[in-house]
Amino acid sequence: MTISSDMPFPAPGPKAELETGDVLSPRFGPDGLITAVTVDAEDNTVLMVAHMNSEALRLTVETGIAHYWSRSRQAIWKKGETSGNMQSVRELRIDCDQDCVLLKVTTAGDGANCHTGRRSCFYRAVTKGVDGRPRLETDKSDQPRFDPNTVYGSDS
Amino acid sequence: MTISSDMPFPAPGPKAELETGDVLSPRFGPDGLITAVTVDAEDNTVLMVAHMNSEALRLTVETGIAHYWSRSRQAIWKKGETSGNMQSVRELRIDCDQDCVLLKVTTAGDGANCHTGRRSCFYRAVTKGVDGRPRLETDKSDQPRFDPNTVYGSDS
Repeated sequence: MTISSDMPFPAPGPKAELETGDVLSPRFGPDGLITAVTVDAEDNTVLMVAHMNSEALRLTVETGIAHYWSRSRQAIWKKGETSGNMQSVRELRIDCDQDCVLLKVTTAGDGANCHTGRRSCFYRAVTKGVDGRPRLETDKSDQPRFDPNTVYGSDS
Repeated sequence: MTISSDMPFPAPGPKAELETGDVLSPRFGPDGLITAVTVDAEDNTVLMVAHMNSEALRLTVETGIAHYWSRSRQAIWKKGETSGNMQSVRELRIDCDQDCVLLKVTTAGDGANCHTGRRSCFYRAVTKGVDGRPRLETDKSDQPRFDPNTVYGSDS
């Protein structure tokens, strides 16, 4: 798809148009970002949640490869460029009020999407601890597929 | 589960503890909110993305019914209280750096989760228009299950 990098997306219109129209007019927040939820195209498993600025969304739509905005590095983040786990976008959806996008992807390499080497960032579930207070239990079925220290260096 | 409303969650610890520990210490943003992704517990379909403050998360954990923070109304939002589509939380997960929660839910009533009456807020996919630019195509398999004007009034 072709998107001008000068004027990538039209400004959001009135509510009815935003919610039922066919114009992609994402509502970036005051920080210039939109939330992106990324799921496995095959089984819908939620893999990660990140953010995109206008340029990251434009690159994602144009190339079919997921690009995000790294808030810590303040830079465009072509996911998987270091680890080899690039995400091919099979489908891109947007929500009712156009302030969140949903990416259905196939992940290359060893299929890790989390910086810890796991398939999904959501590897811990809230359970009830012995004192009745919430504890986190790690999903042992999602084992790290790479060693983050080897791939990213020891400060990862 | 029992959570004190005065000190609901411990402050986030160092990175290693945050990412691999068993302590639920959500990282609320500068606005006091954390992103919440809600999926169908049966087939993982992404239903909606919303936000929670500390109290909404506490209520969700304690009651097992999804509570969010309505940014437009600036109030706790017990999802489905008006429409009857309350969400029972089957599992609650948190991501690697604890700044996003994932709810796996079963929705009561007619199973709508979007204010437009649809099952999911993500009812439009980005496709390539005849001019080569992106257009939105509505997923006709997700038809409104209620009339928003009847349920919420004409300004919904």
